[in-house]
This record gives sequence, C-alpha cells and structure tokens, in this order.
Amino acid sequence: MDLCEVESRIRYTPLQNRIMSAMDAASFIEDGMTVGISGFTRAGDAKAVPMALAQRVRESGESLHINLWTGASVAEQVDETLTEAGIIARRLPYQTNKVLRDAINRGEVMYMDQHLSLTGEWVREGQLGRLNVAILEAVAITEQGGIILSTSVGNSPVFARYADKVIIELNCNQSPLLEGIHDIYIPGPRSHREPLQLWDVRDRIGTPYTYVDPNKIVAIVPTDQPDNFVDFAPGDAETDRIAEFLLDFFEQEIELGRMTYTLRPLQSGVGSVSNAVLAGLSRSRFHDLLMYSEVLQDGVFDLLDSGKLNFASATAISLSPRRGIEVMKKLDEYRDRLILRPQEISNHPQLIRQLGIIAMNTALEADIYGNVNSTHVMGTHIMNGIGGSGDFARNAYLSIFVTKSTAKGGKISSIVPMASHVDHTEHDVEILVTEQGLADLRGLAPRERAEIIIEKCAHPSFQPALRDYYEAALKGGGQTPHVLEKALSWHARYKETGSML
Amino acid sequence: MDLCEVESRIRYTPLQNRIMSAMDAASFIEDGMTVGISGFTRAGDAKAVPMALAQRVRESGESLHINLWTGASVAEQVDETLTEAGIIARRLPYQTNKVLRDAINRGEVMYMDQHLSLTGEWVREGQLGRLNVAILEAVAITEQGGIILSTSVGNSPVFARYADKVIIELNCNQSPLLEGIHDIYIPGPRSHREPLQLWDVRDRIGTPYTYVDPNKIVAIVPTDQPDNFVDFAPGDAETDRIAEFLLDFFEQEIELGRMTYTLRPLQSGVGSVSNAVLAGLSRSRFHDLLMYSEVLQDGVFDLLDSGKLNFASATAISLSPRRGIEVMKKLDEYRDRLILRPQEISNHPQLIRQLGIIAMNTALEADIYGNVNSTHVMGTHIMNGIGGSGDFARNAYLSIFVTKSTAKGGKISSIVPMASHVDHTEHDVEILVTEQGLADLRGLAPRERAEIIIEKCAHPSFQPALRDYYEAALKGGGQTPHVLEKALSWHARYKETGSML
Repeated sequence: MDLCEVESRIRYTPLQNRIMSAMDAASFIEDGMTVGISGFTRAGDAKAVPMALAQRVRESGESLHINLWTGASVAEQVDETLTEAGIIARRLPYQTNKVLRDAINRGEVMYMDQHLSLTGEWVREGQLGRLNVAILEAVAITEQGGIILSTSVGNSPVFARYADKVIIELNCNQSPLLEGIHDIYIPGPRSHREPLQLWDVRDRIGTPYTYVDPNKIVAIVPTDQPDNFVDFAPGDAETDRIAEFLLDFFEQEIELGRMTYTLRPLQSGVGSVSNAVLAGLSRSRFHDLLMYSEVLQDGVFDLLDSGKLNFASATAISLSPRRGIEVMKKLDEYRDRLILRPQEISNHPQLIRQLGIIAMNTALEADIYGNVNSTHVMGTHIMNGIGGSGDFARNAYLSIFVTKSTAKGGKISSIVPMASHVDHTEHDVEILVTEQGLADLRGLAPRERAEIIIEKCAHPSFQPALRDYYEAALKGGGQTPHVLEKALSWHARYKETGSML
Repeated sequence: MDLCEVESRIRYTPLQNRIMSAMDAASFIEDGMTVGISGFTRAGDAKAVPMALAQRVRESGESLHINLWTGASVAEQVDETLTEAGIIARRLPYQTNKVLRDAINRGEVMYMDQHLSLTGEWVREGQLGRLNVAILEAVAITEQGGIILSTSVGNSPVFARYADKVIIELNCNQSPLLEGIHDIYIPGPRSHREPLQLWDVRDRIGTPYTYVDPNKIVAIVPTDQPDNFVDFAPGDAETDRIAEFLLDFFEQEIELGRMTYTLRPLQSGVGSVSNAVLAGLSRSRFHDLLMYSEVLQDGVFDLLDSGKLNFASATAISLSPRRGIEVMKKLDEYRDRLILRPQEISNHPQLIRQLGIIAMNTALEADIYGNVNSTHVMGTHIMNGIGGSGDFARNAYLSIFVTKSTAKGGKISSIVPMASHVDHTEHDVEILVTEQGLADLRGLAPRERAEIIIEKCAHPSFQPALRDYYEAALKGGGQTPHVLEKALSWHARYKETGSML
C-alpha cells in the first residue's frame, strides 16, 4: 500500500501523526470494553483492527471479552474470527455470520436483536452504557477534520460522536469518489427535537462528512482490503413468479387509481426475491422510480442504468465483487442520483410513514393469519435478525412480505397454523406473496385472512392440512381461532421426523 | 332541548336549515354503506343517529349491514344496539363492548384491529374503499362553517374530509367551552409531505375547527345526551405496588443521570394501573410533568390540579361521570394546559419517537422472553384491540408494560412460557412490571430476559414451573429456547381444567 496516498487523504494535517498499524491501534481495546465498528451488510466495515485484535488475543492467550456494536452485518471474517477467538460477549443489532449465529444459538454470545433505526437513539441516551472505542472505515479526512465514510454509513456517525476514543481505518482500496455521496445528520436531544426536515427521497439534510473531535482520534490505520461482498443466491423460477405476482398487483393498484406508474418510493430487503423484483421492474412499464431503502444491491444499479430508477437513498452499497468494481469506477455518473444516510435516517419511522414507502421484506414463515416470523428457525434458533424489516413494515404505505411457500425440498411449509416466533404481527402485514400467489390482506379480519392465505399462498401439498387445521380451530371460535394443542405441532413434527407433512 | 340554543351554536347561518331529527338523518344510511362515526374511548361519540338507525331497522325489519369505522371505542349503547340489530358487518379500528366482542368472537362481525395512528392514512388513500357517510358530534359550527368537535377528536377530521356526506350531531349537553381546545391538523398527501412541525408537547400546528365543505353537510341533529363515561375499576394493593415499582425505577434512572424529575412526556394507557401511577406521581417528588397520550382520565386532571402536570395533550377526555361534570364546568381553567388532537397526531410514530415518550401500557400476558399479548384471551378470543399500544411501544423512549402477575383468582399466570398471541414483540418491550417486581430488559438477550422476568415478575406460585420449562427449553438451545410441544400447554390446561397450575 502507498502510505503517501494515505497521507494525501488525511487533509487535516495535524492528524497525520496518528497513523499507526492495526496491531498498535488494537492496543486501545481492553477487556470489558464496548466497541462500536462501522459496517452495514458487509459494506464499509472496519476490517483491520478487529482482525489484529483477534490475532493479539490468539497469540497472547489473554482473556478479552467485548460488547460489539455494529451497523448491521460486517465482514464475514471479522464476525467469524472474533467469535472463534471468544472475544464477543455481547452483540447488537444484526448479524448474518454462521459461526457467530451458532455461538449465539449455543448461548455463548448474548445477542440483542434490535430494530436498526433504534440503536442510534439508545447510544445517544446512554441506555446501553458507555461506548469506549469506535472503529470506523473512511476514505478521507477533510481539511476541517471531517470523516468521509466509505460504502456504508450505518451507525458510524453516532458511534463517532459518543465514543471515548475513535480509530479510523483509512481504506485506500475504497474509492475517493465516495466523497459527497453521504448525507450525515444526527437527530438532536429529546424531548425538544426538530422534526427531520426531509420532504423527498432526494433531499439532503446534513453534511457530506461525519464530524469527530480530532482529539478523540487516537489512531489512523491505513488499510487496503476491499469490502467482503458476496454474490447472493441467483433467482430461480420461483423468485421470478413471486416478482411477477407483485408487479401484476402493482398494475392492478394503478388501474384502481391508487398509484401511478412511478409507484411509491421502494424499500427492498436483501436477497434473491428482491433482485428478481428489481429485474422485473427494469423490464416493466414502470418509470421514474425512487428507492428509499437500507441497502443498494446489484439490481438497484441495473435499474439506475436502465433509466427506470431516478434516485436511490440507502445506508449502504453492497454489491457482488464484479459489480462493485464497475460501480466504484464510475461513481461520478451516479453521484446526482445517490445518497447514503445514517441507518437511523434510512430506516426512520417518521420518514417511512411520511414518504409512503412500498416495503418488501422476506419472511421465514407466516401463519394463516399473516403473523410473520423473520428470524427464528423452528421458533428457537436465530437466523440473522429482524434488521430493518420492522422499521419498514410498521410504517410503510404498503407492507409486503415474500417467501417461497416451502423450504427444505418441500419438507417445510412456510405457511403454518401458528408462527413459531412472531416478529411482525398481523397488524403490520398487508400483502403476502409466495410463488403460489399473492394475498391482499388489507381491511380483512383474521378469519378472512386465513381463507385467502391458505388459498393463495400455501403450497398445494400443505393446503388440505391447513384447511383441516383451520376448520378444527373454527369450532373453538374467536377473532383468531386456534387449536392450541396443535398450533405448533407442525414444527414439533418437523423436528422429530424431518418433515412437516 | 332548546332548539334556539342549537341555532345559536350554528353560527354559519346557511346551515341552520339542515336541522332535522335523528331518524330523518338516519335515512341517509343505506345497506352496504361505510359509515364513519366520531368517538374515542366513549367520548364525543355520535349517539343519536346510530341509535335511530337501529330503531329504524328493528321496526322496519329491513336487512341493513354497514361497515362501521370509529376513532376507538364508542358509547356502550351504540355498539351494543347496532350489534343486537345485526347492523355491523365490519368494524375498525378498536372496540370495548361485550356484546360486540362476543359477536366478533363468534365470527359474525369482521373486526379489523388496527394501530390507531394508521386509520387516517388508510382513509385518505382509499385503501379501505369509499366512506359514504360520516356522523360527527360537535359543540358548534363557526361563522366560516368550521366544525367544533366535542370531547374527542379521534378520526373525525379525516372522516369529515373524505366522506361523501356528513351528519353533525350538535350536542347541547357538551360544553361550548371546548371551543379552542382542539388542534386539528390533517397530514398532506404522500410521498411529498411536510414533516409534522411539532417540536414540543405544547405546540399547536393546526386549527381549532375541522373544516368540512358545507355542501356535504346533509343534516344537523340536535342532541343532548352526555358522554357515556364509566368509572374504571378502582385501584387496589396490587396496582399500587405496580405504581410504586415504576416510580422507584424512575428515581433510579434519575440517579443514573438519564432523566430529571420532570421525566419525559408520559403516555399512559387506560385503566386502574394507569390511574394508580398517576396518583403516585401526584404524591411524588416529580414535577413539571408533560403528557402526550391518547386519553385524559380522572388522574390526569388530578395531576393538573395538583400542579405536578404542566400540560396534557391527547385525542380524548374520558372521565368518570362526577369528574366529567366538574371538569367541563371549569374548562377555562385548563384551557392553556390542554390540547385535543386527531388520533393520528396523538399517536404518530414521528412524534412519539421525537418527543421521547415514556409509554405505559397494559399487557394481558407476557412470555418469559417479554413478548406481549394485549388483545387475545387464551390466544383466540379478542378482548378489546391493540389500540394505540403499538404506536407508542414501538417508538417510545421507554416502552413499559404492566400487568398483574395472575388473573382469575390465581388460576392464570400472566407470565407464560410462550405468549398465546403476540401484539408486541420482545423488540418493543423494555420494562415489564407486575405487583411482584420490575424487570429492566434493556440491552438483554432473550436468555437473560427469561431469567429476570421469571425472577422479578412471575407470581411465586408459578415460578417453579416457569423455571422448569426454561431449563427444559435450554436443552434444545437457540436464541429463544422453547419446548414447542409444551410452549402453549399452560393455556391448553387452563381451557381444560380451569387452571394453569
């Protein structure tokens, strides 16, 4: 790596003498500390210092446990290596790494699964205790000492403001063209706070840099590792069907006069269904679209390229390796159509409500009444976390959940009598889509929801058993009929026999 | 009733010729229509026209079914009489009447239980279909034709704006002093909407009247019935203990520097625990308090009288009969310390988040992980509805749920292995209080939540069984350990034997 380049990126010259190695910077981290690191969906994460910390612990054999706060998921190797070194005592607010997840499910790591818009409020108000060290990836430091973040904003601005000490990982591999893309705004103290003055997806309300008191910056670590981007599972016939059902539904809403072909600002969760929807949009009659989302994936840039999408706002850019290189090279072409914001702004209830967003998120399972489980496999073992799905589903103009109707080669029905864990209650689930069909649940009572969900969304191989369950439940009456003895029997059967059938 | 007085209250003289009887006004309601009526927690509800409609149907024997939208609960006799006459086909967003509830649980009335802040958005955007007739209680009509609502605002302004026809019940029994108390604001269209410019609980952002196109007003019906206020169950030793635990907790938070003795703006659900908390506050060291809540009950006016409470904002005033008469007489004394707003403003996610509210709501049951059921008895039969609890719990600075640890003379534990229905997920439940103690769940993982909830909140007679369940669940591992076969067995046992023990 070219250290000269690093110095040229530290335009506030008094900070140039804080340059040090990752291992030296890691020495600021001590047992029992709370450490906040940058990173959201493996974009813009602190990479070098956490790895150096793990190396130190492995080599010294010292006992070191930290509370680790992030934006959302960070680089695979960071969560994995820190978990294997036994360093993470407590983690929030989101993760996606298998090694860490297994440790959480064994009860070795205490995981607080939190709405992504909320962490900032908690940090500001000290409800989670003191933040000792923040480690933030940046691409530059301005003449005035402002930090230019990299491919994600996440919780970095609030970590920077509230941490006792700040370590900057200055990543020469990240494009300096990112400068100007960010819009950093930190809400003021409650209970006398100015409303977020954002009227439109394209509005800027903050600054392109994150301000940190330069005296708190104890280390600047030059790095050059690219983001740990991964290819998502490609779409298939089923995700394409889900996308088709959704686009047909949008067309119907337009016919009913409720929307136009510019739709409403879109939020789209991460994954193959989202990419299928975005691909469908790029071939559709919809135009002049806007996104107000968490993460911008490959499909968003395809839509920008096709001219269908006018503007995209999010908190992170998380691309496949190939697309990542392309996009970063021609970032200037996207500059006027792109904003990265703190996650508490991208996911803020005020803005989601006010902008009237169409929210599309993925369910692990849904029950016949439309309660959604997004997090817990068989009700007990966490997969990733609730992420921003609750922020969006609760406040959206339209809250859509998608899932394939079965999993594990047809052994698991994603439509079950009772969700084994509830993340989104029926109040927050308006449209449910599987490759079998789309259920429009708006305005319906639970009994009506059950009929339509079984009819439209369940896989044919599970429909008779779902109907039997519902018929039996009706005998007991109620707003939400159930046979309590059998409500979770499908999950119990799967655990026992390997199949819900 | 003095018709002259009614005419003197209709200061926009062209409307004086629309005065007619309730029975004549009811003729505007036809089979299949959607009717929106004023009313929130039995305050300010349309009383005469719905009753006349029921009378007409009973006498004529005609078949008439309507979709009935309200603010929240309306007068007991209205829901009861309309239900008994078989008139309500569909109902939203909240109710508390036993006769109606039973009809809902038998599946005769389709009940959409909705977050109270959301109805306005749905009405504006036509997602629930056309609103044919609105029936609104008012105390006056201004010189310019503005409607002065009575003891609640609820959804009346949005009903007035979007209904095809509007019927006004001009209630001479309601105090004309209510004029000036209301602050009516209707959010603009999405996706380019101005943020709600309310920075402080005391801010006014609207007008004291609700504007309706005078041509839409088809009838003005003079009435003189008082609100159907009821006395809530008085407090007892257990509600007092819950209040004490809460006030001690507030003191601890002050010691930790997280709050001052003015606390944060308070929201308090309806019921005896709320009244106990308010009574506790009036004897405490706290001062200069603010309320930003849904409903103002007796206890709020006691706090205003004692000087402890500086200001109260809500969408309805719902008092005991005695207190109601007192308060209405001296309304001028409260005028500068009181605002009634539309329920979408009193319960708005933006404002709840921004004002940093302490939200106190009642749980029917909570599970050992802190998931809360507020609505469904034994998971199937609805009690009232989610009301505003979700609006507040999700966005509050502190989300507190209270419940007695047992019900039905100790036969039911309010702390159960798994909630039989989930309205508020563990993500939205930070403090849980019973008469046994207070569990501070902030920052904790589910396994930690279980230990503290069983220890602090469960009744001693159920603690051993809860501990046994949790120990057994731990063997299966997971972020949220459960024994699926037994998770709902307590509820099943109660239904079979009449006891969870």
